[in-house]
This record gives sequence, structure tokens and C-alpha cells, in this order.
Amino acid sequence: MRPVITLLTDFGLTDPYVAEMKGVILEICPEVVLLDVTHNIEKFNVMRGAFTLASVLPFFPHGSIHVAVIDPGVGGSRKPLIIETDSGYLIGPDNGLLALAAEKGHVKGVYEVTLGRYRGKKEVSSTFHGRDIFAPVAAYLARGISIDKIGFKVETYVKPRFVKPVIRGTLIECTVLHIDVFGNVITNLSMRDVEKIDISSTSKVDVSFRNRTVEAVLASTYSDAGEGTLIMIMSGSQGFMELAVNRGSAAQHLGVRVGSKLTLKGKS
Amino acid sequence: MRPVITLLTDFGLTDPYVAEMKGVILEICPEVVLLDVTHNIEKFNVMRGAFTLASVLPFFPHGSIHVAVIDPGVGGSRKPLIIETDSGYLIGPDNGLLALAAEKGHVKGVYEVTLGRYRGKKEVSSTFHGRDIFAPVAAYLARGISIDKIGFKVETYVKPRFVKPVIRGTLIECTVLHIDVFGNVITNLSMRDVEKIDISSTSKVDVSFRNRTVEAVLASTYSDAGEGTLIMIMSGSQGFMELAVNRGSAAQHLGVRVGSKLTLKGKS
Amino acid sequence: MRPVITLLTDFGLTDPYVAEMKGVILEICPEVVLLDVTHNIEKFNVMRGAFTLASVLPFFPHGSIHVAVIDPGVGGSRKPLIIETDSGYLIGPDNGLLALAAEKGHVKGVYEVTLGRYRGKKEVSSTFHGRDIFAPVAAYLARGISIDKIGFKVETYVKPRFVKPVIRGTLIECTVLHIDVFGNVITNLSMRDVEKIDISSTSKVDVSFRNRTVEAVLASTYSDAGEGTLIMIMSGSQGFMELAVNRGSAAQHLGVRVGSKLTLKGKS
Repeated sequence: MRPVITLLTDFGLTDPYVAEMKGVILEICPEVVLLDVTHNIEKFNVMRGAFTLASVLPFFPHGSIHVAVIDPGVGGSRKPLIIETDSGYLIGPDNGLLALAAEKGHVKGVYEVTLGRYRGKKEVSSTFHGRDIFAPVAAYLARGISIDKIGFKVETYVKPRFVKPVIRGTLIECTVLHIDVFGNVITNLSMRDVEKIDISSTSKVDVSFRNRTVEAVLASTYSDAGEGTLIMIMSGSQGFMELAVNRGSAAQHLGVRVGSKLTLKGKS
Repeated sequence: MRPVITLLTDFGLTDPYVAEMKGVILEICPEVVLLDVTHNIEKFNVMRGAFTLASVLPFFPHGSIHVAVIDPGVGGSRKPLIIETDSGYLIGPDNGLLALAAEKGHVKGVYEVTLGRYRGKKEVSSTFHGRDIFAPVAAYLARGISIDKIGFKVETYVKPRFVKPVIRGTLIECTVLHIDVFGNVITNLSMRDVEKIDISSTSKVDVSFRNRTVEAVLASTYSDAGEGTLIMIMSGSQGFMELAVNRGSAAQHLGVRVGSKLTLKGKS
Repeated sequence: MRPVITLLTDFGLTDPYVAEMKGVILEICPEVVLLDVTHNIEKFNVMRGAFTLASVLPFFPHGSIHVAVIDPGVGGSRKPLIIETDSGYLIGPDNGLLALAAEKGHVKGVYEVTLGRYRGKKEVSSTFHGRDIFAPVAAYLARGISIDKIGFKVETYVKPRFVKPVIRGTLIECTVLHIDVFGNVITNLSMRDVEKIDISSTSKVDVSFRNRTVEAVLASTYSDAGEGTLIMIMSGSQGFMELAVNRGSAAQHLGVRVGSKLTLKGKS
């Protein structure tokens, strides 16, 4: 089985950076399968990167190696990290980027990278750890080098304010994790949360953002409602509750952004 | 020979969707060669996707598997489809997206997808058939599973208004299928059409759009005319008549868009 | 070892062009590893393409085949070229695009492409040499066809105004080669240049552009200075001097663009 390495960064695809990472990986492990998750995460948006990594993780073969680099603190004191989970390896800066994905599985070990003699053929630049540390680490793991030779065990890793929805009686306050290219609004509300509360038994829900409330219709697919109607899909394609407008943008409809807090209330 | 799967969607590369499709495919068929055609088709622009798929098809090895997902009706009643042609397999929603490519070759069979036990490891979501139906179907075909086990034969498929040019005496009315990133205007006029009519014997052609007529010079390459001159290339790189402006944008020059209808008349 | 082919163009990823090149390559050499460098170079910006190709070259395995197509003169008289270096092969139009990369290594031979019987399965269009000439040439080289069968030796190749920094006493005039997605300004000043002059012994440098002078602090990493401070990194990640602003855009700070000329003067 050829090893799989995926890459997720905020580098964009205009600059040479992503290609350099791939060159480094191929040099060390020519038989690898290299896949891009995305390089279009907004600059320094660690939360969005964390969401994306957590979303894709369950769909890759076990043992895949996921490199994620959104790294405003490059060259500073944050640790270069490897998290070994039952799904595979997560490699990147210890700034919360890996944490959501790590929490999706079972963490088997956390390592700070040492590299030692396992590094790229160039010197480590102080500004591009993606290419000079994370890419070679991933490639050596893919080649079968033991994780103990490229890192040492540490106790824990930075966990972002992992925004769980807050339940207050019959109200839920949830957070927008992601707005996709269609304007669908993906929240941090999972099926498990919903089952605990009143909303699960209603067919309409009041969605409040700031001082405005909009009614959403529970539906299981985008085309279940007429054009322009706000719908709520409890089990969206990413495993979270999504708000959508058939052939429209729910984000525009509600006026929300990533990080916005929404309040939900079931209607009897 | 490793099987080839290509992907064409309107998902963009910012969201996790395309990566999830790739993870699903790799899980089922690790030895596959995975290639992106494009994920930048404008949202829900089935015609543009159909044009792009038809353009690339002839350049891929026989037996390649092409997955295309531009799917405004996902979760509704449109069928998930496999079209087997002498060039390879076309997989996607039955909304016309596959039809132009299918007509480029010889159709050997049309199948509605059933999946049965051949599906991804997750449940089928109602909103993301690209990942939950089309990707696993492609991967199982790539692995050599017989098409009969993942679909059943149907009579036909949705054919878009496949806009053939209209010939009226010495006039041709053709349609803009595509405007490329250079502003070149690609029409639905093929060499075969041109040979039937007067234009083939002239060196200048009047191109009319709405009430305005611009003269184009027949040429075989972009640099055959001075900067700013409109040129008509009968056998463009996509096998269709193209209008171009050397170092400029023919689309701006003419004021046309995808779907615009142009009238051509040869000048003696 | 599977052969590696990289692609760098200004085609973007919206049009079918890049996918067609990949199809052609796979048809000829199915076992190839295909990698994108970038397809987002601004249209016809040969200098930026040359910079990008030169940047990535050192990170790829020896013997890799690099196809670069930014080709305003396609169909005109410019030669299709192969440059064999000790790092690998550079393939593209003879318009300077390959020259910076070629100068990074040792040039072993320069060839004008003839193709002969080694071409794609389609006719060569006059407008798309990327697909019809450069892609098949790369694929045949990857398959092990001798370079003599697809080209004949020529004396030399077009060298762009390879903008070396100009040293005038204690002043250096350098040129902006590239501005990355973070707004970092990458110049043509290498470590070797710096060692010759006064700047190497100071910790602050005056950077002048047009009539304005801004002080930069020498640093080795982006986070060495407070937010908003201009810093100069002598050995940037691309091997050139970079100007950066921690969590900001140095390009905006200075008001420079690719091609801008900066004057540097060390401060005692």
C-alpha cells in the first residue's frame, strides 16, 4: 500500500511554496500519494483550517499522514508537532490547528518534532517550516522511519477554544464554524446535541442572530424547500447542522460570518 | 496499468468537499491515478461543465473514469448516472452535464446507479452525492467491479439543448460555449460546419452581435495579426472555431458572454 | 523510480487546458508522477514564471522534468526548447522563462524540439503548444526516449534581462522579483551580494523607493519584530533577501510591485 500524505495550508497556489513542499516530500519518499486538501484557507485563520482538517479526516484511509500549516507564529516559540491518532498522523504547528481533528479520533501519542538527521536536504529556514520541517517529517514517516526518531513524547497540545454549543433550557447557542462556497452555514451543532433538546421534535426553528429572528424549516435536502426559504439540515454533509437556502446563500440571508453566534429555539 | 479517475466540479478548492471525494476514492482504490479537471466551474453552470468535460475527454487514455458533479438538483429526483462510452466512463447527475462528452464518442450503455453494497464507508448524505455516491461508484469501477453490480441499464439520458450552429443561406448563427481566461471566445462551430458554407472561401468575416458588426480576419494563430485586431481561428485548440484578439480579450472586444449568439457572414 | 513531471503555466485552473496537458502526458507515460507548480502566474508574466521555476527547482529530485508554459509568442517564431541541466530537464518556449532556473544549475545541453514521430495523438494546433508539443515532449523524456530523438542541439537560449543587483559604492539597487501572498517582497539580492558590501555589518538598513525612505530592521524571522515593523531577512526561504512586515504586507508598506527598484543603504 502506498503511503498517503495530504497537505493543507494558507499558502495559496500562486507562490512556489506548496510545490517546494511537494518536491521535498517526493525526494525523500518517491512512492508517496500526494493530495491537496486545500491551500486556500484565509491567511492565519487557524480555526477554519482546524475545521477543514477535522472534516476531511474521516474520509481518508487509516494511516494517512496529514500535514497542516497555518502558522502565524513560525520561527517563534510554538512547537512543531506530530499527533498520532487511530486514524493516522497529524503534523503541524502546535497552535490549535490539529486539535479539532485530533479530538475526532483517539489520540495515541503527541510528539514534538526534533528532526535530528531526518530533515530536508537544505538548511532549515526560520520562515518556512512547512517545507523545511513539516514536509520532511511527513515524508520520513511515510517511508517508515519510527516516530521516536523524529520526535519526543510530550504531554499535551494546544486546544483551541473548542466552541461547543451552549444549551440554556430550550435555547441553543451555536457558532458558525464555516461558510462554504454556496453560502451554506455550517455550525458546531452535532446530532448528539440536538437529540438532547426540544428542537428535535419540531419542524420549524427560530434562528436568531443579533436582534433579528428568521424562521427555518427543518429539511433533509437543499431542494426540499422553495427557492429563497431558509432550511435547517440537521445532519449536513460534514456531520454538523447546516443552514441553507435552496439556490441561494444562507450566509447572506442571515448576515452571519465564521465565528458568529446563533441562537436556536424550536417552535411548537 | 493504473486506473485513471478525473474530477470536475463546481465545488471550488476552498471547502473540504473535493478532498473528501479523493479520500473516499483512495480508501476504495489505493492504486488509482487521481486528476483534477477543474473545480472552478461557476456554481450550477451545467453548460460550462459539459463543455469542459467534452473538451478534455479526447486527451485522456481509453478507459479513464470521469466524475463530474455540477448538481443543482442534488437530493431531488434527478438520477445518478453512468454513461459508458468507447473512451471511458462518465459519472455524474443526469442533468445534461455528461451529454456533450457522451456525444463526442460512441455510447455503449447508460446506467442508473444503484450502489447496493458498493458505497463509501459512511451513510449517503442527501446533500453530497459527489462524495457519497459518485466517488465510490468511480472507485469501484476503477477497482474492476462490474458496472452491472453498481447500476442498471436505462434507455437514455437528459440531452441539453445541444446548441448546434444554425445555417441560414450564407449566414451562420453560432453560440458562445466558453470564454477562456485569455478572453478567447470559443463557439459551437466546428470545421465540418464551416466547410458547408461560404465562409470557408473568404479571408474576412463579419461577426455580428446584437446590432453591432465587427470584421474578423481569418488566421491560424493568435500572433498572425497585429495587437488589437479581431481574428477568427477556424480550428482552435478545442476543436471549435475561436475568436481572439492578439494580446487582448475578444470577449470584451465583442461584448459577448457564454450563451451569446453570434451571426457570421463571409466577405468576398 | 517513477519519473516526475511538474507543470507551471499561466492558464489558470478554470479552463480545460491544464487537464488536457495531463491527459496527454498520462496517455504517453502512465507511470509518471504529475505535480502542479502553479497555474496562477499572471497572464504573460514571463519574469514571474521564471522566478517561480527557479525557486522550486532545487527542491525536486534530480532528473525531474519541468514543463513551463507562459507563451505570449505561441505560434510565432520563438523556439520550443529543452534545457538539460544537472538537476533535470526544463521544457518550454525560448522566451526567457527557463533561463533563471537554467542558471541555477549547470547546463548540459540546449535543444530545439523537433518532435518528429514523438508527438501527441492529435495534430499540433497552432495555438496550444503546451498540450501539443511541450506535454508530449516531457512524457517521452519521462518514458526514457533519448533527447536526441525529440530535439537537436542549439547553441544557446534567450536570457532575460536577468536583473542582478547593482552595487554603487555603499548603495545597492535591487529589483523586486516577487511579492508573495502574504505581501512579503522578494528581491534579486542574494547572500553572496550582501557579503561584498557594508550592509552585512549593520543592523538597520534604509530602504528607498522613489522619493520615500523607510527603515528596516535586520532579522532572521518574521516574528522577530513587533507588528507593523519593516524587517529585512537576508536569507529568506527562497534563498533571496526578503522584506516583510510581521502580520502585515511589506509590499503595501513600501508601495512596491514586481519589477520595482529599491535602493538599500546600511546605517552605522
